[in-house]
Amino acid sequence: MNNDLTIARAAHLKPIADIAHEMGIGPDLLETYGNSVAKIKLEAIHALSDRPKAKYVVVSAITPTPLGEGKTTTTVGLGQAMHQVGKRATIAIRQPSMGPTFGIKGGAAGGGYSQVVPMESLNLHLTGDMHAVTSAHNLLSAMLDNHLFRGNELNIDTHSITWRRVLDVDDRALRNIVVGLGARNDGIPRQTGFDITAASEIMGVLALSTSLQDLRTRLGNIVVGYTNNNEPVTAEQLRAAGAMTVMMRDAIKPNLLQTLENTPVLVHAGPFGNIAHGNSSIVADLIGIHTGDYLITEAGFGADMGAERFFNIKCRTSGLVPDAAVVVATVRALKVHSGAHRVVAGKPLPSAILQENPDEVYAGGANLRKQIENIKLHGVSPVVAINSFPGDFASEHDVIREIAESMGARVAICTNFSNGGKGAIELAEMVAEAANEPNDFHLLYPDNASLREKIETIAVKVYGAEGVDYLPAANRQIEVYEQNGFGSLPVIIAKTHLSISSDPSLKGAPTGWRMPVREARASVGAGFVYLICGDISTMPGLSTHPAAESIDIDESGEIVGLS
Amino acid sequence: MNNDLTIARAAHLKPIADIAHEMGIGPDLLETYGNSVAKIKLEAIHALSDRPKAKYVVVSAITPTPLGEGKTTTTVGLGQAMHQVGKRATIAIRQPSMGPTFGIKGGAAGGGYSQVVPMESLNLHLTGDMHAVTSAHNLLSAMLDNHLFRGNELNIDTHSITWRRVLDVDDRALRNIVVGLGARNDGIPRQTGFDITAASEIMGVLALSTSLQDLRTRLGNIVVGYTNNNEPVTAEQLRAAGAMTVMMRDAIKPNLLQTLENTPVLVHAGPFGNIAHGNSSIVADLIGIHTGDYLITEAGFGADMGAERFFNIKCRTSGLVPDAAVVVATVRALKVHSGAHRVVAGKPLPSAILQENPDEVYAGGANLRKQIENIKLHGVSPVVAINSFPGDFASEHDVIREIAESMGARVAICTNFSNGGKGAIELAEMVAEAANEPNDFHLLYPDNASLREKIETIAVKVYGAEGVDYLPAANRQIEVYEQNGFGSLPVIIAKTHLSISSDPSLKGAPTGWRMPVREARASVGAGFVYLICGDISTMPGLSTHPAAESIDIDESGEIVGLS
Repeated sequence: MNNDLTIARAAHLKPIADIAHEMGIGPDLLETYGNSVAKIKLEAIHALSDRPKAKYVVVSAITPTPLGEGKTTTTVGLGQAMHQVGKRATIAIRQPSMGPTFGIKGGAAGGGYSQVVPMESLNLHLTGDMHAVTSAHNLLSAMLDNHLFRGNELNIDTHSITWRRVLDVDDRALRNIVVGLGARNDGIPRQTGFDITAASEIMGVLALSTSLQDLRTRLGNIVVGYTNNNEPVTAEQLRAAGAMTVMMRDAIKPNLLQTLENTPVLVHAGPFGNIAHGNSSIVADLIGIHTGDYLITEAGFGADMGAERFFNIKCRTSGLVPDAAVVVATVRALKVHSGAHRVVAGKPLPSAILQENPDEVYAGGANLRKQIENIKLHGVSPVVAINSFPGDFASEHDVIREIAESMGARVAICTNFSNGGKGAIELAEMVAEAANEPNDFHLLYPDNASLREKIETIAVKVYGAEGVDYLPAANRQIEVYEQNGFGSLPVIIAKTHLSISSDPSLKGAPTGWRMPVREARASVGAGFVYLICGDISTMPGLSTHPAAESIDIDESGEIVGLS
Repeated sequence: MNNDLTIARAAHLKPIADIAHEMGIGPDLLETYGNSVAKIKLEAIHALSDRPKAKYVVVSAITPTPLGEGKTTTTVGLGQAMHQVGKRATIAIRQPSMGPTFGIKGGAAGGGYSQVVPMESLNLHLTGDMHAVTSAHNLLSAMLDNHLFRGNELNIDTHSITWRRVLDVDDRALRNIVVGLGARNDGIPRQTGFDITAASEIMGVLALSTSLQDLRTRLGNIVVGYTNNNEPVTAEQLRAAGAMTVMMRDAIKPNLLQTLENTPVLVHAGPFGNIAHGNSSIVADLIGIHTGDYLITEAGFGADMGAERFFNIKCRTSGLVPDAAVVVATVRALKVHSGAHRVVAGKPLPSAILQENPDEVYAGGANLRKQIENIKLHGVSPVVAINSFPGDFASEHDVIREIAESMGARVAICTNFSNGGKGAIELAEMVAEAANEPNDFHLLYPDNASLREKIETIAVKVYGAEGVDYLPAANRQIEVYEQNGFGSLPVIIAKTHLSISSDPSLKGAPTGWRMPVREARASVGAGFVYLICGDISTMPGLSTHPAAESIDIDESGEIVGLS
């Protein structure tokens, strides 16, 4: 089989205006960026609102290995398959971050015959939204440090400042820095650091805004730190929010690309999956929901993380109601959940994992069971998608099917990596069945529950914890947030994505553990409080031989080394 | 008169594909970004090469005040005027930097009825070229620090590292920082800092590259520091140059916009005018030279700086031959050069400068004489453009005319700020006459002159210095550069733009002074050596009330506060 880049190059792309036209989006609502990428104006939300509503399908997964289990590939394949069976589908995904692309991944556009194209645009700057987030974030940082330099009229406690700077690069040396060194005119020295742009609160704002004016309001609500009297200090008070909005004026418009089989793909926003909600933008979905029979959107990491936040944060904010949820599973990940294997990113799979062993799959199946349950907790119909690999055995697929069906989930075997949309027709049919069942969607907790109630609901019901322990710092912060009126916000548990628990070494569906909450932080602009329950890095580092070393142009100027 | 934003909003823009068509550029060579901005593929250089060559006109100025003397406004007006007199002109300018736009300026797209539109695109992200420079620069920084973290195989002397990081923001607190703090995995601590993106060597590379492959080579040649054995360490050795090129693959394509009167405007690259050569890109001019009767390109700061480097660096590299040079002059700046007034950015003009006083203009005329001479030194025909202001007196214009004509320069009074192209018809006619005279263009020094010979040629002949003094550090560095083979590069004198000398307080045409060279630095990738001869800041700071505080969206989502 050809590699991803070769397949992507051979694709027959339609002009993006034609793709938009098929979605019911005319040229007046489109801003084309070259022939194959466009932005859709937010006026489309209103303009399309009279058109029929698509079924809304979220794609999630079991707890993945560090290699990833092909969630984007399955999302793309499902969209392509819908077209194969005569349904019009639109796909919605997050924008990949360039840091990891040039760090470990080398690209993130699906894979094989289920890719988003042009993959070079997707993996590089696209239409500049990431850079707009970087610019807006760092303008606020500069205005904050300038405020200190100019006399600190707002009486900001410099040690309370949580607003850092961001860059879309894997740069460990920027994690902890001291700024403001040099002469008197070079600012006030203090310790701070850089996060990767995807971890910016502004990325969360972008993803959760419902309009340009809502974006403006959320940016103004961003809390950068506290005064010496413990009052929150906002971007609005620093008079930065207007300029930040102007920098984000184009970034708020969703990007339109297509799959190898010309299925429309909305690509918009890329918030972190641990300290943020890990879902693509609301405005993309508000447009996409009126552009066909199905809107298929991907949520980050496993169903305990991305899907839980899709339901309780994204759908809570947008008001959209999901009709079905796909849970992607692989034989290899379930074998890892049996506890018998260890898989490391960038290293070959251990040979033992490639042996036929349905018992191991069954043992690891506890994870799949729990993730199906996590979907059903929200009243949504689950469909298990087995992302099959060439070395899988039928006996192993059979075990997955049994587990899924015993949990009341539909199930389908997918070969769309190798076969494109045709390889996901069974999945498309199962999803269509599930999405047309009566809907019983409900949120897991009400807005007016306390922050602790929200945390404990997720920890116990979704993660299977026995309870929650708060370190003193977390207790204090939660109290301050409740006092400041942030208690009505939904919560995000920032924990490992490699276990349903907060301990990455616990595989399967861990029970009998308690969740330690070390710290609480508030993304007031984006609209959530997040809890640090593990070692969370917000700035990746490069490996000894990063992907960047292999990425280049060839003699004809074509890109090599992206995948 | 309306403000800039109101005028720009009222403009009747043509579809950018129509503008391109009028230049002879078909849709196959165009990548549109919305309806009013496009990138031109580099294939256009070859595709247009059989078409007639335009006359090549550079727009420069006398030594400006801190307010600027309307060089971009005159450049735009001249292009518009050419169309008024039945000639096809293309304009080429640098891309403004967002740092100053949100810092002090609030926008940089010409002014009044001589503007580049859409001014919001021009002043904000445009097509992302600045961000591509930022990304490529910081990827190299991350790979350099990662190399140190991974054991420093190349034996880099960390104290010799000259490669910093960049952001397109005015952020004084980032000028001097310590990176790599924290735990063992957070990198190697060392002192470094951020420059504004326009000051990145990669911006110089972008501006001076003649093709994508040339860009690749120049990026690889970037020297980031030296080994403990004093050998230069390059981006190529760090295996970063391929990935950097991939990040710059779209940025290398010039951007096409238009004036208020639909004159085509190429906007491409924005290198600093002091530590770099301050001219827009060569590839834009290689395309623009075959798109009409006149290609009008703007050079940064006064004729001693931007124009000198236009001739000796940009034309040396591109092989293009200039046919005429405009020197923009204002009454107010010449009055300042008399030594009688002091003008400060952001403050109202002193009232004394607004009185009729032709004698003061005459006294300050020494500056104009010297700048005209600086053009003639290169064998190019000068044309003085008087950028007139409503409060100017005819007697003052007469003095400028006398001075110009006594120096053998043509002269024209311009009212294009208020009147658009019609206000620069006299200038267009004078430029046409000058450009059609026999051409005697020559470079000021040969490649094989020594670095000291090059420095002294510019200091004595262009700046009017009596000689050059080198501090010991500069002497050592120049020796190392000659040994490393960098002696064949052209040179840039990084000095104040507010005087022809290296002392910003010396107005007019200072004589009897010696130029102190404090330090030498090599931009080997871009292709020049630069000499620090003054206090040069490569990262601006914000004022007490930066422009950002006034920039916002209104209720209908339109931008306010840009100008």
